Amino acid sequence: MIAEILATGDEICSGAVLDSNSAYIAQKLEEAGIKVARQSCVGDDIDTLASILKEIGSRADLAVVTGGLGPTADDLTAEAAAKATGVKLQAMLPKGAESLYNPLGTAPGFFMKIGRCSAFFMPGVPSEMRRMLSDMVLPRIEKLQVGVKKFRPVKEISLFGLTESAISERLTGLTAEFPGIKIGICIRFPEVHVKLYTSGKDEKDLNELLKKACKWVLKKFGEKAFSIDGGSMEAVVGDLLRRKKSTIAVAESCTGGLISHWLTNVPGSSDYFLFSGVTYSNKAKIKVLDVLPATLKQYGAVHEETAEEMAEGARRIAGATYGLSTTGIAGPGGGTVDKPVGTVCIGLATPSGAKGYRFSFPFDDRSMNKRIFAMTALDLLRRELLRNRDL
Amino acid sequence: MIAEILATGDEICSGAVLDSNSAYIAQKLEEAGIKVARQSCVGDDIDTLASILKEIGSRADLAVVTGGLGPTADDLTAEAAAKATGVKLQAMLPKGAESLYNPLGTAPGFFMKIGRCSAFFMPGVPSEMRRMLSDMVLPRIEKLQVGVKKFRPVKEISLFGLTESAISERLTGLTAEFPGIKIGICIRFPEVHVKLYTSGKDEKDLNELLKKACKWVLKKFGEKAFSIDGGSMEAVVGDLLRRKKSTIAVAESCTGGLISHWLTNVPGSSDYFLFSGVTYSNKAKIKVLDVLPATLKQYGAVHEETAEEMAEGARRIAGATYGLSTTGIAGPGGGTVDKPVGTVCIGLATPSGAKGYRFSFPFDDRSMNKRIFAMTALDLLRRELLRNRDL
Repeated sequence: MIAEILATGDEICSGAVLDSNSAYIAQKLEEAGIKVARQSCVGDDIDTLASILKEIGSRADLAVVTGGLGPTADDLTAEAAAKATGVKLQAMLPKGAESLYNPLGTAPGFFMKIGRCSAFFMPGVPSEMRRMLSDMVLPRIEKLQVGVKKFRPVKEISLFGLTESAISERLTGLTAEFPGIKIGICIRFPEVHVKLYTSGKDEKDLNELLKKACKWVLKKFGEKAFSIDGGSMEAVVGDLLRRKKSTIAVAESCTGGLISHWLTNVPGSSDYFLFSGVTYSNKAKIKVLDVLPATLKQYGAVHEETAEEMAEGARRIAGATYGLSTTGIAGPGGGTVDKPVGTVCIGLATPSGAKGYRFSFPFDDRSMNKRIFAMTALDLLRRELLRNRDL
Repeated sequence: MIAEILATGDEICSGAVLDSNSAYIAQKLEEAGIKVARQSCVGDDIDTLASILKEIGSRADLAVVTGGLGPTADDLTAEAAAKATGVKLQAMLPKGAESLYNPLGTAPGFFMKIGRCSAFFMPGVPSEMRRMLSDMVLPRIEKLQVGVKKFRPVKEISLFGLTESAISERLTGLTAEFPGIKIGICIRFPEVHVKLYTSGKDEKDLNELLKKACKWVLKKFGEKAFSIDGGSMEAVVGDLLRRKKSTIAVAESCTGGLISHWLTNVPGSSDYFLFSGVTYSNKAKIKVLDVLPATLKQYGAVHEETAEEMAEGARRIAGATYGLSTTGIAGPGGGTVDKPVGTVCIGLATPSGAKGYRFSFPFDDRSMNKRIFAMTALDLLRRELLRNRDL
């Protein structure tokens, strides 16, 4: 079955609004075993719309179209579908089209044939589209593909601590060793996610192949791989803390609350996350975390010694098993020759003592630095928890 | 000039990886006055690739293509371009193509004509593509469009506190009143951004029209509009704090560090952001923020009284002008009949006293609740800063 996705709307085609619908629909179709041959996007122009609908009708068996169904003058999709098939509009829909109920909005979707192609039209508002897709469109598509079910299993391996090119290099040979496996590399800075996928008819064989390929990848990356099920770093760390019946307190300077935000994104994190002090000012470092004024005076705020005292302070105040701290220069200003933008000191306090570390990264972007500093800190804690395997 | 964008790659076409490149390129082309007629995406299949390149060559004057330029077996774009134009591959490029240097990666891009169409091919890695686009591709495109410059100015109005449908309703009549203005509504939960755009040849007229339309929109939304230049809530709040020479301390429970993270995303925020205590446990609320044990006992952690004491505590400890606090139930667990998931109490301490507020939101999603709680707190502070206009 040849499937295509079409997104409509000037705001999408011009890049003013990012189209998240098409990727979502593609994923859902892939999960249903349908490979998407092509995605397209055109603006709000009646002739362009009618012409691409005709094209799709002549190429594809299935089309999923979003956008342009509202009541305003820019909403031209129904008219274009009528034009493409040479029918009239009747009650806002092409004659003969079947209306699809929209429980979350006012504009209904519709279904019709364009040539040999079964075409589903949905609104562009993501919440309305998702609901209509799952409740009405996917069940109908399921019925269209009797006996041609294809499986497309996927494995996602999350890595931290290597550049994309280093990762690509280490993956050399994978597809030769495992024919049928495809690789997708997705950068969610500072993480890199390697997706392995394959497709075919025998679900068991495919899963077996994927499992072997995944094992090959994990061997190449060792501790740099922190998850094989799409789990986030904070979920992995949280899981380790929970299994060890341990708790964590954090002291953040340059990461400004990001570590705490990530950790508390995990449902149930109140079981192990006790406290974070976001101490931007030296005064707060002294008053809240008991950092010694002499340490700040001798070494400055960005130093291993300061980081160590911050981690130990957070751990002590909260009565936590572990303390984790960051102090650094996220930029764009504030760098010096000795401590340029991208420098971070991280403290890790454990029941057997505290230690400070220093890292430097080559970015001058504040947001990138916050992310890579926070991720480096969580990764240090993860490795500590892994080493200490008395689970 | 008819322009098209093509993204290639199985991982994009299948929805496994979101294509951010095409929207980025579309924006840059629009900024250069070039309207994008169509965006497409196909997978790594040599015949499909060659056929869509031929199609584009027959339809468009300009094509910008990303992906498939690396050294692996899946990288088929150069071969497909050669096939589409009936030339051979020579040193990895279609014969006659001009190589485009890639300063951030190993795979070069290239330029060639396909029919009447000037086609630029770039790698799919976003950082490499962006650099190549700005350094090499856009300057060449600039030269192609002698004397046909069109302007497409945009205004972005950021709103908080209304649903998308309420916003659409209030915008009714805008396009009738200002012909030529188009509206794009972009949801960045919990914010909604209204983009107004238009296009034509006279830059001054267009800017005037846009300015008037923007004024019309602002009148409709009043204080719900927090920015007209795409500025974030935290940047707006930070700017107000700086102009008032004021400082802020935060006490976060349910938002888990998100308010601090947002505030410290703004470069230079150390001028006004002093401290945040992310106090998940009651112990931390008492020990760090001086919340009275009696208050917690009488009212519980989620209560206006507790929020008020948290805000006042953070303000006092840090010696800040303002204190802002959150305590609530982000979910998915922890809700009760009296305080269901989505309940948040927010405390705001000012030089003239502290006050607690209660809000409830209908979401059972932890991440959505954290975001809307944090944004509601910042918006309370923003309105307080606006009211108190002794700038």
